[in-house]
Amino acid sequence: MCEQEPTATTASTTANRGGRPVSRAEFDKMFEQLRTWGTHADASRGAWAEAGPRQAADAARLVRSGRSAALGLPWNTVAGPDNAVPALHYMSDLGVREAPEPSTNKDFIGADFHGKAVSHLDALSHIAYRGELYDGHVSTEVVDATGASFGSVGALGHLVTRGVLIDLPHAEGVDWLEPGTAVGAEDLQRACDTLGVEPRPGDAILLRTGHFARRRKLGPWDPSTASAGLHVDAMPWIARYRPAVLGGDGDSDVRPSPTPGIHSPIHILAITALGTPLLDNLDLEDLASLAASEGRWEFFFVVAPLNIERGTGSPVNPIAVF
Amino acid sequence: MCEQEPTATTASTTANRGGRPVSRAEFDKMFEQLRTWGTHADASRGAWAEAGPRQAADAARLVRSGRSAALGLPWNTVAGPDNAVPALHYMSDLGVREAPEPSTNKDFIGADFHGKAVSHLDALSHIAYRGELYDGHVSTEVVDATGASFGSVGALGHLVTRGVLIDLPHAEGVDWLEPGTAVGAEDLQRACDTLGVEPRPGDAILLRTGHFARRRKLGPWDPSTASAGLHVDAMPWIARYRPAVLGGDGDSDVRPSPTPGIHSPIHILAITALGTPLLDNLDLEDLASLAASEGRWEFFFVVAPLNIERGTGSPVNPIAVF
Amino acid sequence: MCEQEPTATTASTTANRGGRPVSRAEFDKMFEQLRTWGTHADASRGAWAEAGPRQAADAARLVRSGRSAALGLPWNTVAGPDNAVPALHYMSDLGVREAPEPSTNKDFIGADFHGKAVSHLDALSHIAYRGELYDGHVSTEVVDATGASFGSVGALGHLVTRGVLIDLPHAEGVDWLEPGTAVGAEDLQRACDTLGVEPRPGDAILLRTGHFARRRKLGPWDPSTASAGLHVDAMPWIARYRPAVLGGDGDSDVRPSPTPGIHSPIHILAITALGTPLLDNLDLEDLASLAASEGRWEFFFVVAPLNIERGTGSPVNPIAVF
Amino acid sequence: MCEQEPTATTASTTANRGGRPVSRAEFDKMFEQLRTWGTHADASRGAWAEAGPRQAADAARLVRSGRSAALGLPWNTVAGPDNAVPALHYMSDLGVREAPEPSTNKDFIGADFHGKAVSHLDALSHIAYRGELYDGHVSTEVVDATGASFGSVGALGHLVTRGVLIDLPHAEGVDWLEPGTAVGAEDLQRACDTLGVEPRPGDAILLRTGHFARRRKLGPWDPSTASAGLHVDAMPWIARYRPAVLGGDGDSDVRPSPTPGIHSPIHILAITALGTPLLDNLDLEDLASLAASEGRWEFFFVVAPLNIERGTGSPVNPIAVF
Repeated sequence: MCEQEPTATTASTTANRGGRPVSRAEFDKMFEQLRTWGTHADASRGAWAEAGPRQAADAARLVRSGRSAALGLPWNTVAGPDNAVPALHYMSDLGVREAPEPSTNKDFIGADFHGKAVSHLDALSHIAYRGELYDGHVSTEVVDATGASFGSVGALGHLVTRGVLIDLPHAEGVDWLEPGTAVGAEDLQRACDTLGVEPRPGDAILLRTGHFARRRKLGPWDPSTASAGLHVDAMPWIARYRPAVLGGDGDSDVRPSPTPGIHSPIHILAITALGTPLLDNLDLEDLASLAASEGRWEFFFVVAPLNIERGTGSPVNPIAVF
Repeated sequence: MCEQEPTATTASTTANRGGRPVSRAEFDKMFEQLRTWGTHADASRGAWAEAGPRQAADAARLVRSGRSAALGLPWNTVAGPDNAVPALHYMSDLGVREAPEPSTNKDFIGADFHGKAVSHLDALSHIAYRGELYDGHVSTEVVDATGASFGSVGALGHLVTRGVLIDLPHAEGVDWLEPGTAVGAEDLQRACDTLGVEPRPGDAILLRTGHFARRRKLGPWDPSTASAGLHVDAMPWIARYRPAVLGGDGDSDVRPSPTPGIHSPIHILAITALGTPLLDNLDLEDLASLAASEGRWEFFFVVAPLNIERGTGSPVNPIAVF
Repeated sequence: MCEQEPTATTASTTANRGGRPVSRAEFDKMFEQLRTWGTHADASRGAWAEAGPRQAADAARLVRSGRSAALGLPWNTVAGPDNAVPALHYMSDLGVREAPEPSTNKDFIGADFHGKAVSHLDALSHIAYRGELYDGHVSTEVVDATGASFGSVGALGHLVTRGVLIDLPHAEGVDWLEPGTAVGAEDLQRACDTLGVEPRPGDAILLRTGHFARRRKLGPWDPSTASAGLHVDAMPWIARYRPAVLGGDGDSDVRPSPTPGIHSPIHILAITALGTPLLDNLDLEDLASLAASEGRWEFFFVVAPLNIERGTGSPVNPIAVF
Repeated sequence: MCEQEPTATTASTTANRGGRPVSRAEFDKMFEQLRTWGTHADASRGAWAEAGPRQAADAARLVRSGRSAALGLPWNTVAGPDNAVPALHYMSDLGVREAPEPSTNKDFIGADFHGKAVSHLDALSHIAYRGELYDGHVSTEVVDATGASFGSVGALGHLVTRGVLIDLPHAEGVDWLEPGTAVGAEDLQRACDTLGVEPRPGDAILLRTGHFARRRKLGPWDPSTASAGLHVDAMPWIARYRPAVLGGDGDSDVRPSPTPGIHSPIHILAITALGTPLLDNLDLEDLASLAASEGRWEFFFVVAPLNIERGTGSPVNPIAVF
């Protein structure tokens, strides 16, 4: 964890603000209130299906300049405080296996991609609360050593919809939110008002906390210990808009968690209660610059996970087009 | 290799037609004629840069119904005649590593993705002819065990442009082209005329031979031995249109190769001469159905490779939107 | 699978002899009769503990010429009928990562080693019958995505003891036993008599069927379909001698299995009933030559598995010294 | 890196003693003096061949009690200051792939094993000085992306010989040598005198610095920065005895290196000059206890690397028997 003092501008009002504690009973009450079990025709896809052809067609009309940004982090093969299980990249050929012409350079890649270092999509099989996945499927019954028969990333497939960037540091006029800063419903609403966006059903809602602006300036830290992210109290606001996917430059959860005994309450509320897949560890810096340059925080958005039929997620490189 | 007799309709005129032999001298002459070395501002990206914001914006205007298709094959972990190095998929967690709540299911994936089983993008560092990559970079000088410093997939980044599907079996009224069938310039032109499309600079040109329609009906075979694909003589036609990327449901090359001593002449002409990245092993069946249903073979197209900074390519799941 | 006709000498009396069918009820009765649950002080190690310092010291006195043989197959990265999940071997450095001096060449290796292609040790956590491992541990309770808390290869550790090679083809005067040949108690006894060896408690009993002599002459086949190996009826004979480990050039089981619904009855009887680890896919050809040259089929024997603390086994390269 | 103050007893005379600086010219002179190029019949095996059947037979006569120790570290999947590229261990089956009976638990393992965390053998292809491997083979000519055609671990095969443990902390009456402590010829000679051992040609010489005693007490540190190990000046003493292999609980090199521009001078002198393979990162604690208990520091010794035909080394679990 980085020990340096931050020297850049950060929000004084939100710095080190982890939000109110939330008891387990309160959390469970919210879980019951938010959950949408039984409401989606294809429970394996959950809220992902909120984005259909109409949303894609509407989103395409947002494309004007054609400028675009990719949100995938570089494939990180170096262990560090935010990379406990580094990705693999080996050259499997350097011009010697296929002869005589052409010679070919080839690679092997590998990743235990859930974690803090790979930009990835969490499918609905990734998170179980009290042993149950979304829609009440018992995790141990539908996920085994061969993968997931319910809630797989193969069942999700790809997404084409409108993206909305809630750029919190930009809206607040700071460089980033300090690790540990909880984002509540009022923070989201105020940022949306400032940026002039309002989410709609089927959107991809992306939250920028400035995580990678901070990391590039101050170096890596352990995001399991301290991350800016959503407070439990923000989730009714999110749920109201029925997004197809929720993403961020952290993993959406504020850490430390406000709820004792639950390390990732937002993962539970989003994935297990609402059936909303998550996009974790997105690099939102280029997108933020582009949005500011274009003067709008909505755009055409595509997520194209690898087709891992029984996978619980996939590394991704989501694309935003303005 | 599948021994069954094909029972579906295949083009009688093209069946088993491997095209005329091309001598090494002729091939080298074409290589000289086609090569665009020194013409691209960023040689690491080559023709990929033909697609810029304008092409993206133009392509977005093609979106009407919002219906879309993904082109990535399922992640194939089973060895077979077309899968010599099967991909890896292991569960790294089944609800026991992160306790107490939530429990998480996680996976490790791995792939030696160049080959015949993974849908992937070939960056310009992948193919060297006579020891040289595109623009004359010496392969052994710019690609080593740490990856590629020239022509990497990280240098390419993503692509947003118009896609054009040259659906040869559809145009010819057959189920697929038999493995070994060479596709020439006149075949391409005739198919384009029939389908009512004409490529433009910056396009993604996708060739369907019906490879996976055949595989699903007759089982896998070894595509190194027999594949429908482009004949050397088709490349001037392709080059004329300056596509940003060329792709197909094989790996673009007809096999056996018409040129002695060169196992993949199209790879050389596209990647090394023209600086045009290739998309290999795309599943074009859903796209073909969708195009036929929409009655047009042009669409908005996005390729989002993983951001492997020194990689020679990446698994991909390209997306077409109508 | 190899289609060629075998041209070498094989045992006419045993060729294609799969042994009598064994009903499930008979199998279960034998399972009850043989099982040694509750008899070993450290159940995680089972019969492995039959070989202690005394056995090691006795075995060392067998060393006279000092000639030795290694039993590990080459690391096989090529898919084939007997290699469904090929091992991985990539160069992770070729003189460029550690500079300036010395330069280093380095490798990454990987293996899903249980199967037919890697010489490996099966620990007691590898095989469950009716959901139970050796000593009645419920498999799903003691083995999870993090590995095995009971019966791991880390618990076994290494083995130093006497090895006994029951070289069936040598004793029978043939080149190999045909795939599918079942070996019974009388075959074992007759071979021991011919070779002049008698197993003792704590021994490593190694059975040679000539698998790799056949493979080198006729090519690979699928050993899941046809393997020479032990018939169920041979296990009381084996059990009587209380070996520390049982190994072979197949995986000890004759295939097809004589018992309906049980694909690997010997694995169950050895590992789950007797607590006897197995050594699978050993290359016994060099050892057989050496034993014949030395004129004795007993030797000093060392197995040194990798120290995978929660692993269910390990690749190994066992060593025999005469 | 561990910041705690050591509280155990360490050698005051040697603490923080990195040894005299050695200029590059001096180093090169020693390289010339020591090198044995052209002297071994099979240069790929180098000094490994000093241990033949006679040495094995002689060593076997050292076995009296039959007690034994394994020297392989636990397979370490957790990144840390001494584990930059953690090993992989995933369960590939948990009772669901092979049905109905028996059910099987299986694992995938992987490792980029050269480094500081895996006990491993360095073959002669691992280290090049001025571009040359042992016997003058040009590294880039004989090692490529497919592995090594000279000096592979497959060419080495296994080793059976006498092992000699030079237990420096035991001989000096301390718990361990502090990281950074250089061990010279006089230290080795004095320890041998104290322990009553003298190396012989073909021996495995193992040096204990107490690395893992310290790690278990004080936690891990980065051994690239500070390791107890051999000083350049110790190598003539080692060379005089013509060991078949040299090993230690570090990687034999003292760090920081005494020679500017050369990070691993002992690797060069042992592997590249002498053709002596190295055993790195051995856990010598159990062996040290056993040797002290037995009152002798010589024993029967077996190294059984995996048979990676073109590998530059292998994970190993060497076995010592008394």
